[in-house]
Amino acid sequence: MTDTDTRAETGFNSPEHQARLAELYRDFEAAGMTPLWLTREGLMPFHPQPRAVPHLWRWTDLLPLAARSAELVPVGRGGERRAISLGNPGLSGDPYTTPTLWAAIQYLAPREDAPEHRHSQSAFRFVLQGEGVWTVVDGDPVAMRRGDLLLTPGWAFHGHQNVSDTPMAWLDGLDIPLVAETDQGFFEFGPDQVRTKATPERSHSERLWGGPGLTPVALAGTRPASPLVAYRWAHTDAALTAQLELEEEGVEGVLEPGHAAVRYTNPTSGGDALTTMRTEFHRLRAGAATRPSRTSASSVWQVFDGVGSVRLNDQQRPLERGDIIAVPAWTEFALQAASQLDLFTFSDAPVFEKLNLLRTEVS
Amino acid sequence: MTDTDTRAETGFNSPEHQARLAELYRDFEAAGMTPLWLTREGLMPFHPQPRAVPHLWRWTDLLPLAARSAELVPVGRGGERRAISLGNPGLSGDPYTTPTLWAAIQYLAPREDAPEHRHSQSAFRFVLQGEGVWTVVDGDPVAMRRGDLLLTPGWAFHGHQNVSDTPMAWLDGLDIPLVAETDQGFFEFGPDQVRTKATPERSHSERLWGGPGLTPVALAGTRPASPLVAYRWAHTDAALTAQLELEEEGVEGVLEPGHAAVRYTNPTSGGDALTTMRTEFHRLRAGAATRPSRTSASSVWQVFDGVGSVRLNDQQRPLERGDIIAVPAWTEFALQAASQLDLFTFSDAPVFEKLNLLRTEVS
Amino acid sequence: MTDTDTRAETGFNSPEHQARLAELYRDFEAAGMTPLWLTREGLMPFHPQPRAVPHLWRWTDLLPLAARSAELVPVGRGGERRAISLGNPGLSGDPYTTPTLWAAIQYLAPREDAPEHRHSQSAFRFVLQGEGVWTVVDGDPVAMRRGDLLLTPGWAFHGHQNVSDTPMAWLDGLDIPLVAETDQGFFEFGPDQVRTKATPERSHSERLWGGPGLTPVALAGTRPASPLVAYRWAHTDAALTAQLELEEEGVEGVLEPGHAAVRYTNPTSGGDALTTMRTEFHRLRAGAATRPSRTSASSVWQVFDGVGSVRLNDQQRPLERGDIIAVPAWTEFALQAASQLDLFTFSDAPVFEKLNLLRTEVS
Amino acid sequence: MTDTDTRAETGFNSPEHQARLAELYRDFEAAGMTPLWLTREGLMPFHPQPRAVPHLWRWTDLLPLAARSAELVPVGRGGERRAISLGNPGLSGDPYTTPTLWAAIQYLAPREDAPEHRHSQSAFRFVLQGEGVWTVVDGDPVAMRRGDLLLTPGWAFHGHQNVSDTPMAWLDGLDIPLVAETDQGFFEFGPDQVRTKATPERSHSERLWGGPGLTPVALAGTRPASPLVAYRWAHTDAALTAQLELEEEGVEGVLEPGHAAVRYTNPTSGGDALTTMRTEFHRLRAGAATRPSRTSASSVWQVFDGVGSVRLNDQQRPLERGDIIAVPAWTEFALQAASQLDLFTFSDAPVFEKLNLLRTEVS
Repeated sequence: MTDTDTRAETGFNSPEHQARLAELYRDFEAAGMTPLWLTREGLMPFHPQPRAVPHLWRWTDLLPLAARSAELVPVGRGGERRAISLGNPGLSGDPYTTPTLWAAIQYLAPREDAPEHRHSQSAFRFVLQGEGVWTVVDGDPVAMRRGDLLLTPGWAFHGHQNVSDTPMAWLDGLDIPLVAETDQGFFEFGPDQVRTKATPERSHSERLWGGPGLTPVALAGTRPASPLVAYRWAHTDAALTAQLELEEEGVEGVLEPGHAAVRYTNPTSGGDALTTMRTEFHRLRAGAATRPSRTSASSVWQVFDGVGSVRLNDQQRPLERGDIIAVPAWTEFALQAASQLDLFTFSDAPVFEKLNLLRTEVS
Repeated sequence: MTDTDTRAETGFNSPEHQARLAELYRDFEAAGMTPLWLTREGLMPFHPQPRAVPHLWRWTDLLPLAARSAELVPVGRGGERRAISLGNPGLSGDPYTTPTLWAAIQYLAPREDAPEHRHSQSAFRFVLQGEGVWTVVDGDPVAMRRGDLLLTPGWAFHGHQNVSDTPMAWLDGLDIPLVAETDQGFFEFGPDQVRTKATPERSHSERLWGGPGLTPVALAGTRPASPLVAYRWAHTDAALTAQLELEEEGVEGVLEPGHAAVRYTNPTSGGDALTTMRTEFHRLRAGAATRPSRTSASSVWQVFDGVGSVRLNDQQRPLERGDIIAVPAWTEFALQAASQLDLFTFSDAPVFEKLNLLRTEVS
Repeated sequence: MTDTDTRAETGFNSPEHQARLAELYRDFEAAGMTPLWLTREGLMPFHPQPRAVPHLWRWTDLLPLAARSAELVPVGRGGERRAISLGNPGLSGDPYTTPTLWAAIQYLAPREDAPEHRHSQSAFRFVLQGEGVWTVVDGDPVAMRRGDLLLTPGWAFHGHQNVSDTPMAWLDGLDIPLVAETDQGFFEFGPDQVRTKATPERSHSERLWGGPGLTPVALAGTRPASPLVAYRWAHTDAALTAQLELEEEGVEGVLEPGHAAVRYTNPTSGGDALTTMRTEFHRLRAGAATRPSRTSASSVWQVFDGVGSVRLNDQQRPLERGDIIAVPAWTEFALQAASQLDLFTFSDAPVFEKLNLLRTEVS
Repeated sequence: MTDTDTRAETGFNSPEHQARLAELYRDFEAAGMTPLWLTREGLMPFHPQPRAVPHLWRWTDLLPLAARSAELVPVGRGGERRAISLGNPGLSGDPYTTPTLWAAIQYLAPREDAPEHRHSQSAFRFVLQGEGVWTVVDGDPVAMRRGDLLLTPGWAFHGHQNVSDTPMAWLDGLDIPLVAETDQGFFEFGPDQVRTKATPERSHSERLWGGPGLTPVALAGTRPASPLVAYRWAHTDAALTAQLELEEEGVEGVLEPGHAAVRYTNPTSGGDALTTMRTEFHRLRAGAATRPSRTSASSVWQVFDGVGSVRLNDQQRPLERGDIIAVPAWTEFALQAASQLDLFTFSDAPVFEKLNLLRTEVS
């Protein structure tokens, strides 16, 4: 029960009352205090009301800009990386793709090197096209090629080197906004050059951890992030192909009709490959569509191959190879495949799953 | 190695180069793109560089302001609570005590009611002084008295009623900033009146879960937040007293010499009582001091009793009963007790512990 | 498909075949080999077929025998304890109460001491009656009184001393059969005398861990067994009383109508107080009955107070104070309470829960 | 303190005392009671004293016996399997290889079928030689070939069919003794014929779960046993080869110098592939030796390839392809490799790890 009536009788909306209230609010402000009754709706909405907006970038727009920067800006100590982030138009002022995720195009010119460093932030690279770069993760040289997902778990030293005569660009994903806004970031420089120039086909990590279900006994025990740092396209493609074949054979495996999906996981725990980001690859058969859904996680998607469209709340957008989509929390989201449609995606779902906050609705 | 020298030779800092660079940056801006090399230092500092600042509020300043608001503003549906948050001076514009935590003074006039609602945010009340209010948590009436910690786990319906003839005020703690900034919030109105007017000494929750180490067999199984929603001062005080007595008997238990501390935990898991906030009570013997420390968690402290001082980085502040301190991440922090010094504290440590991001250094 | 018919045609049951088969079986035996086809039914029955049988012992039978042994056999190094185990009649030759559990009556004469030792086996004491004994667990003196459960986690040193002028007897429960039959046992002598003669009301353990939901910050972290080693009758009784009162108030808590039950749990994990044994206390209202059930766990029950009856498969047995019942796996089990009926019970359920083997059926 | 002296003075070893004691022991026996002081040493030894003994079987001895049984005994409903277990000579009367493990040679003649059933017991097949059999696990046909490990998690339906014109034999491992002695066994008949005659190269399971670190999103979530039921020799061999190569490159991975080892794990948890048994494959370089060790787990080893020797306590035994060794708890165990030496092994370690009982000592 509110006392509105009683107080009204006693002059609750009288000029005197208004004056005293104004004075109180001035005193609150002076004390740095904010009444919940004036902010509740903004602070605690009925459902997520993100400032971030759904947005789509074209790889074909991004790549030339990145290439131009290679002509004008060297990669080196201090700046560290030729990575250009995709800022959500709704989050003006911050170079964040969503409130927790940072997506960027990174570009290395022929024979270029990016120096080693390490940081609290978890990172990955996903390769839309090209090859010729090795990322060196804690001393382990990891080849990067189309379709591969390469991890840099938090606090692992890493640098990149392009040993080829062609430039290479890829998608970088990090939890920079989450870490920055919550003041969790530590950063340390490593060697100016990557510590090994070796360019093996398979990294140490893959040789040790790349056998399905096989754990080196000497290294057994749960780790927060995956010790397997390269997930190769051939395996991803085979797994998706198998799910769709098995669907036809009547064996459970697809996420929904015509929609195969794999999650990149940490073999020591079965959980997400990185501690703060979920990474997945999805494939829709030509003609298939996903059931519309929305989730309190925010995500970024990149079209790896194929054509189709995406619905983001009330807006339908065509999709083609390389397109990158930002999907804020609680955006209604649905995919339609015109051809077979392959997409890589990452999200902040593990953060909110661990905090018992994640909510998802499927229509 | 950066190619600065080489490129300089080829006119890297020439006027033409500068012009092209300026054009590139304009194009980046138009595309919503931000180069990491211009933002790395701000986005990824060597250690946390919070905008939030250490700050101290006096209960004796807060209480009169809250009391004035009771004369001028009713509690009711919409505004929901007569709670006034303590905004960190470094976080101008946002009513946040730290980047993840929201601390407020809440005030109920005699015979007042706060209507029921529920939300994703986790909440607690800590009582510095007074009594006469029952908080009703999912239908369970829970008495609030000096020294008690009362929980409202995420998505539990709750309202408050003051059944006494005196006003009552207390400290509210929520994870509002974390949930708001990451778009995880859901909110729902409940009844306008608390659903029970009962005012029992012990809540259902305490009767079911208040036996040490005793779990109702029918309710066994891990839950994200504690099913025990009231932690009574008598138990807290006894546990702290015991730690200090056992220290004298040579039995392990105190956190450091002269410093007893208990954590409020979830009996179904042994973890933190709430999923996103750590809650603890600390007691220092007269004359004792804590070793200086800093942690990437941010925290809020309230002096429950006694006098002493706190060092926050280079600033020493005297402490007395009711004082509330905001401690941003990586602030050097140390307490000194002039008398026996009792403090309640809460922090965001569980969030970063689960994400493998938490770091702590003790001198 | 079996080839029985074909082989029969070719003389499968001919004398020659029989002779060759007999020779094969002799050769198997010589090689220590056993064909599954001759043993499958015994080794792999359709449901558990325990050799152990349901059995009931009367405390009034056990106590005089224990008392006589006190007159004739000293307690001392080597024999270690005046504990006499209750052997299941179905497990002839082995002093086991069930295939995994060992229950015994332990007896200390006035002013007697049992020397310190430690072992892999987990142990507890449950007190039907009497007092005056302190069990010293890793140096911590723990009073034993009617209704208390006292733990000795695996590898904790422990000894007992009777400081009173009256004898005291209690129920001992250990996982001796499980540990013995699987060769997991280690044992070590400690001091010949308990290391402290102190007789405090509350143990260190209770002073540190006895506050509901309160964890000493210095000791936080999950442990396999409970650091709280005494569960006092007053708390158990209050929790059971509350469950039955709340049932009348319409609040969830009882296990089934008229049947309250608490599990003794490890406050650092919410799991069972001991790693290999579940310990619980059950209370039935006068007139109440449990739904018949059976489980693959084996258990032992002791009537703490009241009268009633138990059904063990097809056999109904009256129950009175002190009665001890062995319940093998898959025994149909139901309790009926003539008066209010209080029972303590322990089982091997945690072992099979962890191995994903436990099955339970409730009618 | 024992009262021996005092009691002796009062005639503690007098004929009367002896007579009373004898009477007491008779009364104990009549009541099914056993004093701990007469059994402590046997029940609770200072370290494991297994009845099981170290033992070695030669595959070349087992195979002809199994082949003879195929001429004389059909495979069919009731007997279920042509599996002949290896009974430990120390466990006379029981067809158990160790107190918890059951190892057997299983044999299928050309074109033979073993009917489907399921049971609580976990099972696997390890293939020393041969091929041509498909085991059908919950409807999924799984090829069996040299070097492969094939799982049958508890309660999965399974049958086998030999589609070739040659017989095939393999090693079966189950937790039959553990389950039988603790009364946890349930068993159910399935179809008399395997439910699918398909003979694909790769099982559904491998197609869904065989990508390293790739989890089908639709099937995500922890499971007690591995959903990957076939671990192929090519992967195992490659992982072992990589560990030894990486050792030469100075990269951590081998268990000890010259000793590579992989554990077969559950990709949904990183834990052991089966809930009750650890399965591993070990490889020693020619000339390498393991450090002597002993553990409270019992194990079975089979030489897959190579020659060398094993020390079991004080006994040294030569090893060659196919040899099977039973290693009881706390047996001192060391391997020496004359050639490169490959061994498969399984143990009950997960059981005792989960119960906090496992102990291991390495010299």
